[in-house]
Amino acid sequence: MPVALDAMGGDYGPGVLVEGAIQAARDFGVETILVGDEGTLKGLLEEKGANGLPLDIVHASQVVSMDEAPSEALRRKKDSTIQVSFGLIRDGRATACVSAGNSGATMASALFTLGRIKGVRPAIATVMPTLKEPVVLIDVGANVDCKPIHLYQFAIMGHVFSKIHLKKDSPSIGLLSIGEEDTKGNVQVKKAYDMLQASELNFVGNVEGRDIFKGDVDVVVCDGFVGNICLKLSEGLAESILLMLKQEIESSLVASMGYKLAKNAFKRFKKKVDYAEYGGAPLLGVKGIAIICHGRSKAKAIKNAIRVADELARMDLHAHLESSLKAMT
Amino acid sequence: MPVALDAMGGDYGPGVLVEGAIQAARDFGVETILVGDEGTLKGLLEEKGANGLPLDIVHASQVVSMDEAPSEALRRKKDSTIQVSFGLIRDGRATACVSAGNSGATMASALFTLGRIKGVRPAIATVMPTLKEPVVLIDVGANVDCKPIHLYQFAIMGHVFSKIHLKKDSPSIGLLSIGEEDTKGNVQVKKAYDMLQASELNFVGNVEGRDIFKGDVDVVVCDGFVGNICLKLSEGLAESILLMLKQEIESSLVASMGYKLAKNAFKRFKKKVDYAEYGGAPLLGVKGIAIICHGRSKAKAIKNAIRVADELARMDLHAHLESSLKAMT
Repeated sequence: MPVALDAMGGDYGPGVLVEGAIQAARDFGVETILVGDEGTLKGLLEEKGANGLPLDIVHASQVVSMDEAPSEALRRKKDSTIQVSFGLIRDGRATACVSAGNSGATMASALFTLGRIKGVRPAIATVMPTLKEPVVLIDVGANVDCKPIHLYQFAIMGHVFSKIHLKKDSPSIGLLSIGEEDTKGNVQVKKAYDMLQASELNFVGNVEGRDIFKGDVDVVVCDGFVGNICLKLSEGLAESILLMLKQEIESSLVASMGYKLAKNAFKRFKKKVDYAEYGGAPLLGVKGIAIICHGRSKAKAIKNAIRVADELARMDLHAHLESSLKAMT
Repeated sequence: MPVALDAMGGDYGPGVLVEGAIQAARDFGVETILVGDEGTLKGLLEEKGANGLPLDIVHASQVVSMDEAPSEALRRKKDSTIQVSFGLIRDGRATACVSAGNSGATMASALFTLGRIKGVRPAIATVMPTLKEPVVLIDVGANVDCKPIHLYQFAIMGHVFSKIHLKKDSPSIGLLSIGEEDTKGNVQVKKAYDMLQASELNFVGNVEGRDIFKGDVDVVVCDGFVGNICLKLSEGLAESILLMLKQEIESSLVASMGYKLAKNAFKRFKKKVDYAEYGGAPLLGVKGIAIICHGRSKAKAIKNAIRVADELARMDLHAHLESSLKAMT
């Protein structure tokens, strides 16, 4: 069954989104339903020579803009690309949905249309590069005010996601705090620590901000407020560091020559830390696969998100989440 | 009047600390009292040829170790270097205290010995490099569970510190959150937003993680749990990025040659992002100047911390903080 793609959302318009779906079809043979204005999408598919690829179009007449309030968008735009995309999962016509549009609206629509696993606060997981293997950070923005039980649920979902998506046998779980000792942290984290300690998860204790990128732990758990700040700080800092380095290099002729020689190493490095390689961030805990992509996603990021959506659906992620959450809470 | 230096704390022992004090005396003419084991310190001063420099020694027989519980250390080690150092401020024999030792104990001792400005939750401010001017991040670890009023107090203290230390006329203040709109954030942040909006501070609204390093805002306010995670994440990520880049460069002979040419640019860059240039993080809101240094501080970091401590004392930071807090709360 195909993946549904919100083909109108995101900062760069439908061109890069359709291109991403075409690449996913060509490179991985994934079927995709493009959801959006039929005329526009047909034109793009023809223009890009996508004949014969397993790509379909479902018309949706409205688009949620990037800065629209999610609840408002949900109520007023019943025929938005986001709503129609999730409707396709609900109606059994698609297995998963990928959107680079308004992430609040994507989340709200997933919750509303698919529903949540009983008793669970859905959370966004993201995969980040480290010095060793990639790490899963959860939650990066779905929940701004969390109770300890929610952090515990995020740990279970991170465990399942790491197992299925990153093929870790027994993923190690760290709790993001301000010191390794169990006495360190705010009230919420200290209580979550005790719950995790008593669980059957492979809990390794608190980890600090500096540990995320060392790659010593497979899953890092935090509330969505902290996680979202960490995610955006990491993106901003990585960009700033490379910019500052570039400024220094460009200020010297000799250094510029050196940079030219080292350019391929820089390129490989950029590929390693490029979020586009990791294919979007799934919203875990809803009854279906929902992948939230960066608004700035280009074709490669969309291609990888579609691949991941398809894989997670085939691996039946949602059923694994449901049974693990049931067994452990 | 001199600055007191906890001359035994930190990861590298008294040698680098004494060296830092010597450099501060030579480069900036700052007087320092070295607090610690008299014999050891005398030996070090002689060995390093510090004759004639304005350096004094006050004996303290105990040292708080890096992993000791602060409350325990305070109760049991009355003659620790940290306690004796703050005692010198209390007794009017020093203007400020610098410590690279156990930061929890440093904070506790500052609170206990100096006392706090009435009604205020002291907070740690740190200066971080950005693409433009350095930014002040406050709080980076003194308070893990904050109310909105505390964030408001941090903003006032950040404002005063930025004015005095970084010579900003009307520092712009941002509130760290997960979106720029005033509706974004957790309960605590949304309430603090309203307080800041109604204040006479130059409040520019919410800022996101990615904005910290852009340098568009002079002060970023957050609770100590979030700030500590951000601080350590930034350190860890910066180190990891440079390591990953190094790995890529070293894997290719041509890139290695290029790196050699660009080496000075890398060095200038490292100097720019080196926390050691910024001279420690003051604990604002106590009745006196307390500078907390990284445990990994080497001589240069200590030198700069002593310089900053001396400057802040001369500018009467504490009186400015007290009057601004009184006027605005």
